[in-house]
Amino acid sequence: MIRFIVLGHRAYTTGDFRLDDIAGGAGRMDILVRCINSAFFLSHDLRKDVELFLILEGGNDAPKTIRLLGEELRYLNPDERSTASLIRNALLKKIENEEVPSSPGIYVSRKTFSDVMSELSDKCRFIYLRENGTDAREYRFPDNPCFILGDDRDPTDEEEETMSAFSYDKICLGPLSLHADHCMIVVLNEIDRQKNPV
Amino acid sequence: MIRFIVLGHRAYTTGDFRLDDIAGGAGRMDILVRCINSAFFLSHDLRKDVELFLILEGGNDAPKTIRLLGEELRYLNPDERSTASLIRNALLKKIENEEVPSSPGIYVSRKTFSDVMSELSDKCRFIYLRENGTDAREYRFPDNPCFILGDDRDPTDEEEETMSAFSYDKICLGPLSLHADHCMIVVLNEIDRQKNPV
Repeated sequence: MIRFIVLGHRAYTTGDFRLDDIAGGAGRMDILVRCINSAFFLSHDLRKDVELFLILEGGNDAPKTIRLLGEELRYLNPDERSTASLIRNALLKKIENEEVPSSPGIYVSRKTFSDVMSELSDKCRFIYLRENGTDAREYRFPDNPCFILGDDRDPTDEEEETMSAFSYDKICLGPLSLHADHCMIVVLNEIDRQKNPV
Repeated sequence: MIRFIVLGHRAYTTGDFRLDDIAGGAGRMDILVRCINSAFFLSHDLRKDVELFLILEGGNDAPKTIRLLGEELRYLNPDERSTASLIRNALLKKIENEEVPSSPGIYVSRKTFSDVMSELSDKCRFIYLRENGTDAREYRFPDNPCFILGDDRDPTDEEEETMSAFSYDKICLGPLSLHADHCMIVVLNEIDRQKNPV
């Protein structure tokens, strides 16, 4: 399983944002929505071996974690607005201590970034994207990689501290710094190639 | 200069579509808008050495070509809605025979796919993405590549005929078939690496 954790530092945690203002009024939810597109879409298929965790840290009910599981996903379309609508539906769910299902393949919980990392730490190898990391093309991807990405902001000091509690590898994707959703495309292409050489 | 031509087979050519229905009512304009994002966005910068041609072939005033030039672009944000708004503004411009400027870096004309290919043929090397093409990592990109991509549909017979009138190279990006906007990310990463090895 390939996993991604994306930190949405200002992303709204209540479902009362407007779908025509996801970049502004929903705390750059547009970035998270593009990460969903990158994680799952193939030309005429979805990537079933991907699990994506969106850590929403903004708005009035933070934090929440939205988990998307490729093998169960339904009703996902590639455009931002309809994907944001699925996220909004998840944020409208009443949640207490347990993770709650929203639409097929989409779950919502009150888990923090630290909760998610702790939970995944025994079944994944964490990988960070860093300019001084190993070239991704020289790196042999493990069977269960888990990539940690920020939205348009770097991880906070607190998040860095959480991350540093676990062992990880650092890789570099190329000479230029890319948006999170673009990084995911490059990473997935490299993994595709390592699994099935061209 | 790196160039992309994207064929929008049903993309609306009038500016009367609704921004909250770009995937449906605007003839899959969402795909073209994501291609704009892929073509130009870097983490904290725009790619100034990219020129993108969107060939709009749907709606009541087809065809139109929208040209975006990285070095002149302004007011471009990464979200789909605001980018679609820039395209809609361009489609509202009155055009006759000449290309007309819309917002900075965005131009609109009545050029056909064939017009655009003819115009570019003496300053570009055309490149098609094909499963049976040369592996992109083995291919040496020319200084002025021009990639031709479809939206969610393959080129029509007429478009294939236009394309076959010019010489071209064929490359393959990996073992899986990707959306056009994702292909652009992989291509640009490969060109970045060839220009500036990691």
